[in-house]
Amino acid sequence: MNRSILTVPVQRLEGESSASFQDLLAVEEPLEIRIGEKTISITMRTPGHDPELAAGFLFTEGILQGSHQIQDIQGSKNSITVQLNPDVEVDFERLQRNFYTTSSCGVCGKASIEALRMQGCPVLPRSSMAMPAVTIHQLPQAQREEQAVFERTGGLHAAALFDFQGKLIGLREDVGRHNAVDKLIGVEMLAGRTPLSNKLLLVSGRASFELTQKALMAGIPILAAVGAPSSLAVETALRFNMTLLGFVRNGRFNIYSGAERIQ
Amino acid sequence: MNRSILTVPVQRLEGESSASFQDLLAVEEPLEIRIGEKTISITMRTPGHDPELAAGFLFTEGILQGSHQIQDIQGSKNSITVQLNPDVEVDFERLQRNFYTTSSCGVCGKASIEALRMQGCPVLPRSSMAMPAVTIHQLPQAQREEQAVFERTGGLHAAALFDFQGKLIGLREDVGRHNAVDKLIGVEMLAGRTPLSNKLLLVSGRASFELTQKALMAGIPILAAVGAPSSLAVETALRFNMTLLGFVRNGRFNIYSGAERIQ
Repeated sequence: MNRSILTVPVQRLEGESSASFQDLLAVEEPLEIRIGEKTISITMRTPGHDPELAAGFLFTEGILQGSHQIQDIQGSKNSITVQLNPDVEVDFERLQRNFYTTSSCGVCGKASIEALRMQGCPVLPRSSMAMPAVTIHQLPQAQREEQAVFERTGGLHAAALFDFQGKLIGLREDVGRHNAVDKLIGVEMLAGRTPLSNKLLLVSGRASFELTQKALMAGIPILAAVGAPSSLAVETALRFNMTLLGFVRNGRFNIYSGAERIQ
Repeated sequence: MNRSILTVPVQRLEGESSASFQDLLAVEEPLEIRIGEKTISITMRTPGHDPELAAGFLFTEGILQGSHQIQDIQGSKNSITVQLNPDVEVDFERLQRNFYTTSSCGVCGKASIEALRMQGCPVLPRSSMAMPAVTIHQLPQAQREEQAVFERTGGLHAAALFDFQGKLIGLREDVGRHNAVDKLIGVEMLAGRTPLSNKLLLVSGRASFELTQKALMAGIPILAAVGAPSSLAVETALRFNMTLLGFVRNGRFNIYSGAERIQ
């Protein structure tokens, strides 16, 4: 049984005519992410790869710095508990404080970016490697081919990790785009392969501040979105020296920052 | 100056050729929503219609029940403070408790649905009115025409409210789909026009549990999505007797629940 897909009866109306058939839906269920006894987050996600999702979330939100801090990950149906090594201390108070506010500008995009820096998000190093534009043109097709199974539902976002030669390293799908990214990064973080230098993250849909943050926390130098970036995604990419590409489809893309990583 | 759009220089690569031009980005900035001194939420949104967003959010999340509870709404750049009438009590403790957990099944979709009921989300009454399929086929086009100004950025989600005759009542756009819905519902709630009986909510993209919840809290009987619904969106619609339509585009749509409201 595939926990990611559910079959339901539906009625399709086309013009004036109507037909009944069985449709495939992407499953959406809550997942509780805990550190020990403490609930850190509840996210609506597509079941599957839950330990990686939990690990990736804690990592890309700046709560954990690496797999060496994790003793054990246990899961029940919709709950994942991460046990940390005894010497690891998490500042739970800090988690509840407001990361989008500074004393100088109050709540604003600048403060959101500054908060990333305070969470330990590094400015990416100047890259000695660059990725050929012709390789980037091929990535959406490579992603779609790998996605073939899930495309049946039309209800899943995808995130894929590639190396600079265009080789697919991993792909995850989820009803929440941020979960797909966390699942993908979680695998790499648990295997001790972060920071993900010389990698490209391709996401379906748009590039928001949140996705830019997650890619940065994992040290990914190129974020490529099939859709448009937001203003704050571009500002964040510029600030942390990340390459941000938008509208990556049909043999075209736009470079919003970090053009030196594209040949 | 339009606060929703920002112009930035970009480089476009098409095949092997490259050109520089000015691109329009959808603005994304954090908004703090407060009740008195207390921060209830920080959401990443496109600036504009912030008081309506705050009011709509508090209403669709079940924190407020109507405009009669609001004394005043004040805003600075990225912060909105809602002052309640002195006799209104908000259970802030309850807000922090976990709404996705029940003692019987723990964290699960069923518990998420049950939590809605406990927040006062009503089961929709059987409708005496129905909407012609031919009218529904025309809604995506009507939405796109109204969206023309913002489509330039490619970065905004839209939500539109229609009556059963297909007349557009309102449309809002935002980098976050849930914000577009809250802005739209906020206007109606502040004007004392909720519950929104005999109305249809059309959303760009997919129908998630979150959007289904927001429509239900506003009493909207038909939710129509241009994309696919999730499993939990369908289960929630069935439970509360809401009509849920998916893939509403190109003269077609699927009915996932509540077919009696479609002629």
